[in-house]
Amino acid sequence: MRVVVIGANACGGKAACRLKRLDPNIEVIMIDKEEIFSYSACGIPYYISGDIPYENNLRETSYKVVRDINFFEEAKGIKILNKTQVEEINREKKVVKVKYLNNGKLDEIPYDKLVIATGSLPKIPSIPGVDLDGVYTSINFKTALEIRQKISKGEVENPVIIGAGFTGLELAEALGDLWGLPVKILEYFPQVLPKIIDPCLSRIVEQHLRDKGIELELNARIKEIIGKDGKVIGIKTEKKEYQADLIILATGVKPNSELAKKAGLLVSPITDGIVVNEKMQTSDPDIYAGGDCVEIRHLITGKKVVMPMGSLANRQGRVIANNIIGEPDIFPGTIGAFILKCFELAIGGCGLSLETAKDEGFEALQALNNQTERSHFYPDAKFGFYSLVFDKKTTKVLGFQAVGPFTDGTLARIHAISSILPYKPTIKDLISLELAYAPPFNNPLDPIHDTAHVAEALIKNMITPISLEETLEKLRNGDTNIVFIDLRHPREAKPMVKKYSNWINIPFPELRNRLNELPKDKDLILICSTGRRSYEAERILRANGFERCFVPLGGWNFPRRWGEDIE
Amino acid sequence: MRVVVIGANACGGKAACRLKRLDPNIEVIMIDKEEIFSYSACGIPYYISGDIPYENNLRETSYKVVRDINFFEEAKGIKILNKTQVEEINREKKVVKVKYLNNGKLDEIPYDKLVIATGSLPKIPSIPGVDLDGVYTSINFKTALEIRQKISKGEVENPVIIGAGFTGLELAEALGDLWGLPVKILEYFPQVLPKIIDPCLSRIVEQHLRDKGIELELNARIKEIIGKDGKVIGIKTEKKEYQADLIILATGVKPNSELAKKAGLLVSPITDGIVVNEKMQTSDPDIYAGGDCVEIRHLITGKKVVMPMGSLANRQGRVIANNIIGEPDIFPGTIGAFILKCFELAIGGCGLSLETAKDEGFEALQALNNQTERSHFYPDAKFGFYSLVFDKKTTKVLGFQAVGPFTDGTLARIHAISSILPYKPTIKDLISLELAYAPPFNNPLDPIHDTAHVAEALIKNMITPISLEETLEKLRNGDTNIVFIDLRHPREAKPMVKKYSNWINIPFPELRNRLNELPKDKDLILICSTGRRSYEAERILRANGFERCFVPLGGWNFPRRWGEDIE
Repeated sequence: MRVVVIGANACGGKAACRLKRLDPNIEVIMIDKEEIFSYSACGIPYYISGDIPYENNLRETSYKVVRDINFFEEAKGIKILNKTQVEEINREKKVVKVKYLNNGKLDEIPYDKLVIATGSLPKIPSIPGVDLDGVYTSINFKTALEIRQKISKGEVENPVIIGAGFTGLELAEALGDLWGLPVKILEYFPQVLPKIIDPCLSRIVEQHLRDKGIELELNARIKEIIGKDGKVIGIKTEKKEYQADLIILATGVKPNSELAKKAGLLVSPITDGIVVNEKMQTSDPDIYAGGDCVEIRHLITGKKVVMPMGSLANRQGRVIANNIIGEPDIFPGTIGAFILKCFELAIGGCGLSLETAKDEGFEALQALNNQTERSHFYPDAKFGFYSLVFDKKTTKVLGFQAVGPFTDGTLARIHAISSILPYKPTIKDLISLELAYAPPFNNPLDPIHDTAHVAEALIKNMITPISLEETLEKLRNGDTNIVFIDLRHPREAKPMVKKYSNWINIPFPELRNRLNELPKDKDLILICSTGRRSYEAERILRANGFERCFVPLGGWNFPRRWGEDIE
Repeated sequence: MRVVVIGANACGGKAACRLKRLDPNIEVIMIDKEEIFSYSACGIPYYISGDIPYENNLRETSYKVVRDINFFEEAKGIKILNKTQVEEINREKKVVKVKYLNNGKLDEIPYDKLVIATGSLPKIPSIPGVDLDGVYTSINFKTALEIRQKISKGEVENPVIIGAGFTGLELAEALGDLWGLPVKILEYFPQVLPKIIDPCLSRIVEQHLRDKGIELELNARIKEIIGKDGKVIGIKTEKKEYQADLIILATGVKPNSELAKKAGLLVSPITDGIVVNEKMQTSDPDIYAGGDCVEIRHLITGKKVVMPMGSLANRQGRVIANNIIGEPDIFPGTIGAFILKCFELAIGGCGLSLETAKDEGFEALQALNNQTERSHFYPDAKFGFYSLVFDKKTTKVLGFQAVGPFTDGTLARIHAISSILPYKPTIKDLISLELAYAPPFNNPLDPIHDTAHVAEALIKNMITPISLEETLEKLRNGDTNIVFIDLRHPREAKPMVKKYSNWINIPFPELRNRLNELPKDKDLILICSTGRRSYEAERILRANGFERCFVPLGGWNFPRRWGEDIE
């Protein structure tokens, strides 16, 4: 049997190698348009930053051998046709028509089974000047080399990144933190990581970026990229003009499904992804497809989505190989798990954000929480911020996102939730999770538990939530029908008490003895760092006849990390 | 309603506080024998080490208020009777008979519902001299203070710890790493963390301890503790005599269930734990029990076990409060998740080790793996070592253990597995896990995936395993019917090739072209760092007629980390 694989990166490479492991006698030919293939696209920001010293490091196996033609042919027994463009798939004849880019010659390569792993193409917005020299619309091995060379030669002084998604933020760190360049990020949406995390978390990231010297324009409407002698020299938004000698478009990708479409394979008009079944088989049973070019089922919404993630591509490659060899295997779908380093933050999530959950028609609620990753008494314990999105009716978990320090603590929580999410857990199931504990790692109740406890309190109406945004608005409005009761230590409360006449401080342990100081005819907004004392205070106050209590959901540490000018 | 809680630490404290949150009007009285209560027992090693500066830090809330009588009474509305011994529970009269230790007076305290959270007692082996001054048989708030005081006064020069379980290892670090004392550990079993992790992992920990200057006697048979003028001066095992001015027994605990037994409540003669149902209700429906003093169901074996963990105690306290208040809740059981810092290692696990799985009658197999926690090209990526235990017939996961660097990487993997373990996943389910990926955190396929891949290869007989122990034995025996084929880089293989005549080096990428160098009439033991190349090499060799191939399971990094003198 001969298997031809189009595209030699994550999915294609994995399918090819797995096939040869399953059956060393199978013939596998892997075709790639580029000269350099089988590199870690996800590693590129760390190569640009210099964290990864040599470009070949991106192409190495874990045992430090470069995955070049020689490696694939000798070590893996896979024939490689690189610098080879696939022009057409002839399904009737079961051949792939190719053009060798070296010499322009055409050829036909017969297949028994075909794997399409053509990846994605950048979405390029139609901005005037986008084709100027110095504007990069795509980040790949070749452009990464160019960009790093430019930077290391000192040719870059004003880099601008368009788009604050995963790649945009990783590149901002690469250029800003590690090369010390004054990076600007222009983002169309009103937040970084739009649709991926909700504003309560994205605002923490935005402030962190600003703290790190990144200039961030949100809601950016780009008018044009300005050039001189064919080279980029600036970029203009509706609000501002920036000098720029390097512009990187990180505005997302779309499935590279043209070839499949031309071959008459089913391609979704909605997602542009190649349609595959759970076996990763296209509408032609002899042709499989996987990676960024296909659409897959979202396990929470049930809808088909495109999810360009290296981790999924690798798993799909494995499923394809198993099915080709006759060992039935399925890829059931995705929950969209992600993790990301952004300067000194780790940002992760899985499932739906509140915004996307609502867009999808769920009656979604959000529980917010912040607490130290390690036991609060353990040295150097830093705060993590957590958002749990769930369905009000069924109490099923819809998503979980976290922003914390750059440790593996965020990964730990995302790993836990993404592992059970396909089992459709309820809030109660999260509360029942058994999670390992020791003071250097967490508290006896993990942040997952405590975030689920907030959700449970919401479900059982044991807490009367008010959003932090609304709280801030009410504070700034100076509404005299509201009293803010600060339950924190006097030292923490002091600046607020000084600044706002309706802000009073009753440290939580004193509350029960000072109830007589509180008015029953005003709204009481209960303030503490994490929301825990506020919640407990509401329980006490309600039991004592105070009916107008509100708990700002998430706790005061959130707006403090947003960089709100409140104190 | 009045609820009386006996024992004011993890489970008792949580039950009491939760009760007051659920219903602030309920009357809660909490009784504790000690003067100081509601402290983090798990935090003690970090107080002894000095990592946690003040003893009161162990008693603080996350907002830095000490949980003393005043705090419980004023902030929580809970009446505290400390220094109060419960002498008897009279279930007929529904009263608790107490003695106030301050003045010896007796009293009766009526209850509507009672919570027993009496915790555990140390198991004290009958060693001659165990009652000498300077021998600590129990680690609690009081003894921790004493020990730290002694050390900081310079009165300790030769500490000896008996028992290499969780507490023993944590204390070894506290005394060794942070006070620079020459710690000795004496362990009855042939390994540290016996029954908890298997030798392939425990040997890594043992070598790490030795690297850190800890003297370790395994299989230790203690003959006596030697005293002079009533004070400890040494300890003698069958093999050796040690100087000692401080001896800590960390030989495990047993449920403190005497009071319950005396009251006629059902107590298991096997585990000594108080028998409770899933609601944490004892055989008397008005009496609940939780924490270290009860037995609970092990979710993998189905058997009743005692699992003295702070995390479980906290969750059980919550379940008890919910049930008392009339909100039905259950604690279904445990999977024994744990995590532990030991010098620069993180050690974690859940479910069963191979040894315990076999003891429990499972037809258990073990998949071993080691790989970098972060992407192999990411700077400072360190190796984690993983063991996955599964049932051969059903392919169900029985347990997972890991030893890695002191990051949260081990926590991440344990959190993932322990979250799904109650869902009884198969190896296939682990392979299908969607786990977030970015190079600073892991590889596109997480260590969990790759460990599950090893398990799958074992299940499908795609790999012919040989244990590392057997491999080492064969190597040392100099059997000429065996050839060791080192698939690593020549630099790594060199010392072995030099030392052993039957050890040859064929770097993996060259294997297909050098098959003619290999004998077909000898056993070929295929060596690489992690087992990946060995596995692939077996696939290639078998396809080429070499039938006597063996893969040392886990890879050569294991014995290298065991400190085996092989090179």
